[in-house]
Amino acid sequence: MSSHVARHQTGDPQFLEQRFASRAAGMQPSEIRSLFAVASRPEIVSLAGGMPNLSALPMEMMASVVHNLIMTNGAEALQYGSGQGHPKLREQICDVMALEGIRANPDDIIVTTGSQQALDLISRIFIDPGDVVLVEAPSYVGALGTFHQYEAQVVHVSMDDQGLIPEALQQAISSVRNSGRKIKFLYLIPNYQNPTGVLLPADRRTEILEICRNEEIFVVEDNPYGLLGFDKASPNAMRAEDSENVIYLGSFSKTIAAGLRVGWALVPPSLKEKLVIASESSILCPSNFTQLTISNYLANQPWRDQISSFCELYKVRRDAMLESLEQYFPASSTWTKPGGGFYVWVNLPPEIDTKLMMPKAIVAKVAYVPGTAFYADGFGSWAMRLSYCHPTPERIREGVKALGHVVDQEIERRRSGFQITE
Amino acid sequence: MSSHVARHQTGDPQFLEQRFASRAAGMQPSEIRSLFAVASRPEIVSLAGGMPNLSALPMEMMASVVHNLIMTNGAEALQYGSGQGHPKLREQICDVMALEGIRANPDDIIVTTGSQQALDLISRIFIDPGDVVLVEAPSYVGALGTFHQYEAQVVHVSMDDQGLIPEALQQAISSVRNSGRKIKFLYLIPNYQNPTGVLLPADRRTEILEICRNEEIFVVEDNPYGLLGFDKASPNAMRAEDSENVIYLGSFSKTIAAGLRVGWALVPPSLKEKLVIASESSILCPSNFTQLTISNYLANQPWRDQISSFCELYKVRRDAMLESLEQYFPASSTWTKPGGGFYVWVNLPPEIDTKLMMPKAIVAKVAYVPGTAFYADGFGSWAMRLSYCHPTPERIREGVKALGHVVDQEIERRRSGFQITE
Repeated sequence: MSSHVARHQTGDPQFLEQRFASRAAGMQPSEIRSLFAVASRPEIVSLAGGMPNLSALPMEMMASVVHNLIMTNGAEALQYGSGQGHPKLREQICDVMALEGIRANPDDIIVTTGSQQALDLISRIFIDPGDVVLVEAPSYVGALGTFHQYEAQVVHVSMDDQGLIPEALQQAISSVRNSGRKIKFLYLIPNYQNPTGVLLPADRRTEILEICRNEEIFVVEDNPYGLLGFDKASPNAMRAEDSENVIYLGSFSKTIAAGLRVGWALVPPSLKEKLVIASESSILCPSNFTQLTISNYLANQPWRDQISSFCELYKVRRDAMLESLEQYFPASSTWTKPGGGFYVWVNLPPEIDTKLMMPKAIVAKVAYVPGTAFYADGFGSWAMRLSYCHPTPERIREGVKALGHVVDQEIERRRSGFQITE
Repeated sequence: MSSHVARHQTGDPQFLEQRFASRAAGMQPSEIRSLFAVASRPEIVSLAGGMPNLSALPMEMMASVVHNLIMTNGAEALQYGSGQGHPKLREQICDVMALEGIRANPDDIIVTTGSQQALDLISRIFIDPGDVVLVEAPSYVGALGTFHQYEAQVVHVSMDDQGLIPEALQQAISSVRNSGRKIKFLYLIPNYQNPTGVLLPADRRTEILEICRNEEIFVVEDNPYGLLGFDKASPNAMRAEDSENVIYLGSFSKTIAAGLRVGWALVPPSLKEKLVIASESSILCPSNFTQLTISNYLANQPWRDQISSFCELYKVRRDAMLESLEQYFPASSTWTKPGGGFYVWVNLPPEIDTKLMMPKAIVAKVAYVPGTAFYADGFGSWAMRLSYCHPTPERIREGVKALGHVVDQEIERRRSGFQITE
């Protein structure tokens, strides 16, 4: 029936590649993806995932919140809503941010499908192919993926155990600009960073803000863990100090529930309209149902006490991990000591390749994320991210012990000159 | 403190424009946006919006569905989920699509935040700036917005009261290709199209599918209204006839509740991986909470009966609108006679400009959407979309009567040569 006798099969991979947009060439599975399939088996102690621990969340309470929402306001909760997000929730978000010193206008907030969508929208309005985004070294894998999808060039800036180093930032800016490239923004996670768990102290925040203002570079402050400090309160958010040059991202995924997918961006007023248009083009509007669930929860439940319960739960797990690292990991390794959040970053001796070591860890029934996942440039092969948020303290000890043994064997094997066959 | 004495203010609009990505230049408010603010005032009869009517949805039932979900499966519902969407819901979506003749594998489905997100993801993997997307004339304003954001060139293909005309499609393809441009896909809404309400008959579906297969152009079949036929069942979905070249978009927004923001794409297997990666970069994962709400609703409630109730509710409103158009609109106007869905498309005499007429309609306490909103090229100035989904039949009659009067006056004014001062 076809008049094109020699037409291509639409399933033919080579022909298909030509039909995609050029940005699609970079849409390849990450190394983390295949890993998670294995790590989620029940017999494996997963120190890989970043799933919040919901065991401290009373389900009867949540069930009654959603039941009451539908009975009292179902017609609104189940209907299309505003592209920018529900006005009442945007007001309540201002109260949440006030805990970190932020004074904001609800009109400058855009509610998103998790803060991942905010990252996507910011990338969309700012990034032309080849533009540079500055990020911490290492940085959040999900942000790297989004920047990559918008064909940004990601440039890592050095950190130490106090977070991003202001001098290194100044140097990176000069070096990128000397090469003739355009910097669109600095992306960083100042509180209990993913993947290192490191906290950026107040004086560095001020220094970094000043550098970025002077250099006319927006700061994207991603802050999912700010209220999850175990030992003392976090410094004020960077946005508290600079409302003109900071794009602030928040999320209820770690303080209430990730399954609701509610995050937000607080932006300088001049950016709002384009972000709302970008969001409408992307999802039309965020879910009224999940937004109003959070709104009613915030209005009627002791949410600050609930966050304290989460902190206690995570603190016990953090302690279990740090203690067992001390006990079971070799002296030649070092790791961060997070004061909050979900993650510890471990540096092993440089001859170790944590990606190649993964299958051995899986055999020993423990999983982690190899360090290279958090770099855009293949760096970090001797490092790993361990998360303590989800397993019980007992399982964490068991997992770290097993992993310490795998590391010992790997160091021994490498040093004794065994041929590795992977 | 700053070393740059003459630095720009970040709020300076001209300076700001240079900082955005080039695609952001096109992110301008649509004409529909400012309109909706006015049209939502209670004294206005809005024939403008496309909000589903939830008055037929029993809220006690929905409240008990969500309550039970949290009590029996809260730990999963409130947690991060799969980027591709929940496996159980993807199986149930296959059952829903079977009603329109589709046989599908759950593994080829990607659950999205409304089908708008599916449009965004498809644009992302296919559209390079300048690529051509073929659409019906007129077409869905939200799709046009997304294609525009990815810097596509939208080419409209003529319709009649039987939908897209196959000969016009063949001609458009030749003409675009002769001009050296690349066509990425044909986007169409075969059932009760937005904005015309027109149904594409089975023989045209087959013809269009064959043209697109031969020309190696994907068909994006957007089908939010397929189950909302009032008079008889719709023909089989186009995807039922061609699983290799059709990308099918579905949604629960019109059959269950829009506020849950759950839609899906069913795609040829060769496209799935890139779409999942694009979706993870965009939102990480869709909400388990809203997906499982729908899954439990489908599993435990008489959802097909519920769709029948919606159809009865809309049919009464469609009848009220068609009757009152007959009664109150001038003989020089014509309109479509939808067999389902939400919309009627009205053509007025060509000297009428429905955008300029809007303020007069608002004064008469009725709102509609001007025809130009549904064209990428400024066409459609004499047309309007009227929706009958939301108001009561009485309000619809009242609104159409008031609008008919405004139209009469406008025709009179134009024909008598009055100077219009807008």
